[in-house]
Amino acid sequence: MKMDSIIVLTGRTCTHALLFAQLITPDGTNHGLHGFVVPIRDPATLETYPGLIVGDMGEKIGVHGIDNGTGYHGENLLNRSADVTEEGVYESKFSEPSRILGAALENLSAGRIGIMQESCNSISSAVCIAIRYAATRQQFGTAAQEIPLIEYQLHQWRLFGYVAASVVFKLYIQNMTQVYLKVVEKSNSGQKLDNLAKSETVSEIHAMVSSSKPMMTWTVLRAAQQCREACGGHGFLKRANLGDIRSNHEATVTYEGDNSVLCQQAGNWLLRQYGAACAAQPVDSPLGTVAFLQRGEDILAEKFQARASDDLKTTEINCEFVIVIHYPYLGVRCQILLRSQPVYQTIHIILSTYRWLLCYLLKETHDQYQSLIASGLTKFHAKAKTQVYKWQTLTQVYAEYLALMFSLESIGRKEKDLQPVLEKQFLLYGLWSLDRHLVELYQGGFAQGEGLAKLLRRAVLELCSDVKNEVVSIVDALGPTDFVLNSVLGKSDGKLYQNLQKEFFHNPGGLQRATWWRDVVPSKL
Amino acid sequence: MKMDSIIVLTGRTCTHALLFAQLITPDGTNHGLHGFVVPIRDPATLETYPGLIVGDMGEKIGVHGIDNGTGYHGENLLNRSADVTEEGVYESKFSEPSRILGAALENLSAGRIGIMQESCNSISSAVCIAIRYAATRQQFGTAAQEIPLIEYQLHQWRLFGYVAASVVFKLYIQNMTQVYLKVVEKSNSGQKLDNLAKSETVSEIHAMVSSSKPMMTWTVLRAAQQCREACGGHGFLKRANLGDIRSNHEATVTYEGDNSVLCQQAGNWLLRQYGAACAAQPVDSPLGTVAFLQRGEDILAEKFQARASDDLKTTEINCEFVIVIHYPYLGVRCQILLRSQPVYQTIHIILSTYRWLLCYLLKETHDQYQSLIASGLTKFHAKAKTQVYKWQTLTQVYAEYLALMFSLESIGRKEKDLQPVLEKQFLLYGLWSLDRHLVELYQGGFAQGEGLAKLLRRAVLELCSDVKNEVVSIVDALGPTDFVLNSVLGKSDGKLYQNLQKEFFHNPGGLQRATWWRDVVPSKL
Repeated sequence: MKMDSIIVLTGRTCTHALLFAQLITPDGTNHGLHGFVVPIRDPATLETYPGLIVGDMGEKIGVHGIDNGTGYHGENLLNRSADVTEEGVYESKFSEPSRILGAALENLSAGRIGIMQESCNSISSAVCIAIRYAATRQQFGTAAQEIPLIEYQLHQWRLFGYVAASVVFKLYIQNMTQVYLKVVEKSNSGQKLDNLAKSETVSEIHAMVSSSKPMMTWTVLRAAQQCREACGGHGFLKRANLGDIRSNHEATVTYEGDNSVLCQQAGNWLLRQYGAACAAQPVDSPLGTVAFLQRGEDILAEKFQARASDDLKTTEINCEFVIVIHYPYLGVRCQILLRSQPVYQTIHIILSTYRWLLCYLLKETHDQYQSLIASGLTKFHAKAKTQVYKWQTLTQVYAEYLALMFSLESIGRKEKDLQPVLEKQFLLYGLWSLDRHLVELYQGGFAQGEGLAKLLRRAVLELCSDVKNEVVSIVDALGPTDFVLNSVLGKSDGKLYQNLQKEFFHNPGGLQRATWWRDVVPSKL
Repeated sequence: MKMDSIIVLTGRTCTHALLFAQLITPDGTNHGLHGFVVPIRDPATLETYPGLIVGDMGEKIGVHGIDNGTGYHGENLLNRSADVTEEGVYESKFSEPSRILGAALENLSAGRIGIMQESCNSISSAVCIAIRYAATRQQFGTAAQEIPLIEYQLHQWRLFGYVAASVVFKLYIQNMTQVYLKVVEKSNSGQKLDNLAKSETVSEIHAMVSSSKPMMTWTVLRAAQQCREACGGHGFLKRANLGDIRSNHEATVTYEGDNSVLCQQAGNWLLRQYGAACAAQPVDSPLGTVAFLQRGEDILAEKFQARASDDLKTTEINCEFVIVIHYPYLGVRCQILLRSQPVYQTIHIILSTYRWLLCYLLKETHDQYQSLIASGLTKFHAKAKTQVYKWQTLTQVYAEYLALMFSLESIGRKEKDLQPVLEKQFLLYGLWSLDRHLVELYQGGFAQGEGLAKLLRRAVLELCSDVKNEVVSIVDALGPTDFVLNSVLGKSDGKLYQNLQKEFFHNPGGLQRATWWRDVVPSKL
């Protein structure tokens, strides 16, 4: 087995690279994507091995502490699922090439889940800084009493949706990581790999991760930007740390699979399940995330029914209600206790609206893709012409639905005292996210006239007002220590003005005239 | 006259600051916002004057070459419109306080127009880099022939709207600057200030600038971000220059009036005109930007009528058509020749949809504001509770409408050969911008069912495909020289891969192992 040399861009210290590449055996057969472990440098000297060009391409926008790496070599195939004999003959435990890809992709999910966990920390830090600033920074009002920013509805609306997102994302990713680890444990245990090959579980996890990594990282990027803007000129100070949080986070929308490309992969699985449902075949969703497709036609016949914004946001406690989630593949069965009938009603409206959206977007995407195939386009080109407004939107709606389902289940397991607080954050996130999909809800006939947009947006604003007195405590719980947060605007002591002044007076040389002052004074003076 | 000392944050070299502050005379009367010129440092030594604390607050996210400045002092009132006698008596040429504010604000418009011009350069550079990269960077397709990114519909959609925005913004701001300069010329000429005071022209300019600066700077910020993402990992390299373009541009959404605050000011004037129209009084719009409010009720009765996406995007030439724009205050009368009936029809649909949106958002904003006033809220609090989804959206729609009207007029004056190219960019910008307001169009009953969203979005995608072969030439015309563009991804020679490789090999020390390599090698090796 041989591979042509390629230019590698790598960290200046790594000794091995993990490379995903097409495997072409001496007989010219392309066996598809495989993982290779490639030695790059001598671990004792950090000199590169002969024939390799290894180097650093230069400074980046952020993530300055990390270099990326790749490389080439011929002998280091990761051979859990496939191998090449010394005679150059390819051997795999899988019969279908697409299954090999799936097994290789399983390994990539861990990195993407790590990115999502990291993103949760980034959004928690960003909203922690912006909310603490909003609670202490006063602007306008009367000369006698200026008003804290957090009192302004516009400021609440700009930030509170992102606070809710950080709560929901944290609950989602904690829960989802557990499910993922159980799947990996099962796959790595004594059970035969055939079971893994047969199962759709790995594919479903891959679809979940491939849709959620883009949705989360894009949301967190918007959050970091909004938090910076909401802190005004002070937010533009480097010591506010919002610039670095944004720039260091930003790479996540590109690496470990560019977000737009990952959306395509998630859509593949979703459309396969939709195709099965249309053909009256079983939907192969072992984790149950799209089990509802079996009743897709009924769902699409639903209409928006709320009559007042209270229907969309109430959290009063009336009765008990139980939602049950099955994970047949894992043998897990979760019960969610929802204590209040009105909360259930609101949650039901949010989740059923999401299910309607998924069915609608699946139908639109599927129909357009099939009609392009029928017109003679290749699968590749038909897919490329189905991304905008459809395929990509579909996968992002799916990811938001997953975040809602998994966080809801988590809330059901939390202490009773905590649940009402978390439920409000859940409702705000759900409604605030649906606000971004109103066009599709109108376009597809789920609603018409002013009712839906008016009620939903009113509920969002009312919820913002409702949670105002809780958000500071929430970001205190979400945020890291002052040392890690590292922001002059977001210290936990709440002494914004004093901290800013101290920063200002202690800025080295900041109060002296510039050392080069003579260079800018006209000579005649 | 005396003012309390304040801490000033300033550049390390500026000798004078222009300060806008409340003027309070010895008798305790507050005369409102006035401009002051404040000496800060001795121009000969750059030492600050006694009693002043002047310093630099530290590093920022971007705009590293510029410090901001302000200061205090008592004697330096800018006294074109008002003065204080030596006995401390206030004298103004204006009788109404709000007019004084307007006169002071006129001076701020120049800075904001400068920001818009600068923003046009930033978006032109960003799209120039991203489009050249898209045209040369190949990904996926077959092993024999990879496909340039620009061929992918998703990639076109991500970028081409921003190309159209840079064309429209440039035409808009050039035209608007001329109008502004004529107004300033007239205001500074021999004519009495009473004329200025009486006229609404300064207020209309202020509303135009206060809505357009937010709309443009936010759009350019999204453009810079999208361009970075569309260049993937290569865009994340510092030498791509997209990070610096974004970070240096970013301050514009905050300075010279935070965008959210400016939107409030623009809305004040718009709502005053709407109020006049509702009361069957003349709309005082000397530049004619909201003259259509006189027939607001007829406009609100209109419905979406296009039946095919061709109705929304065609540029075929059929006949001549003339739009006339009056600037009564300036005595200017512009004729726009539109050569084709279908283009006119599309332009008509876009502009009339914008006028419907403006009338609808004015009505919604006005009604909510008035009902909050009726419920007992102060003007201040009623306004604060009318920003989200209403007041702010209204001003952004107004700014987009202005960009369309002023750029359309510019196109009418361009060379005949150029007009078809510019018209297509105009159509794309108009439809792509309307796409962001579909919810309001559905909510307000302008349309129902799938027609509007489906046709408009199809037209956007078809236009993207139509302009694909023109965009490289357009960004060549918009972009600066290679030296100014300063991007390894966007050189005008189109040799992307060679330029990247050269950059890589010439990165100082990039190919050597790190100097600190011994520190990371375990001692036992």
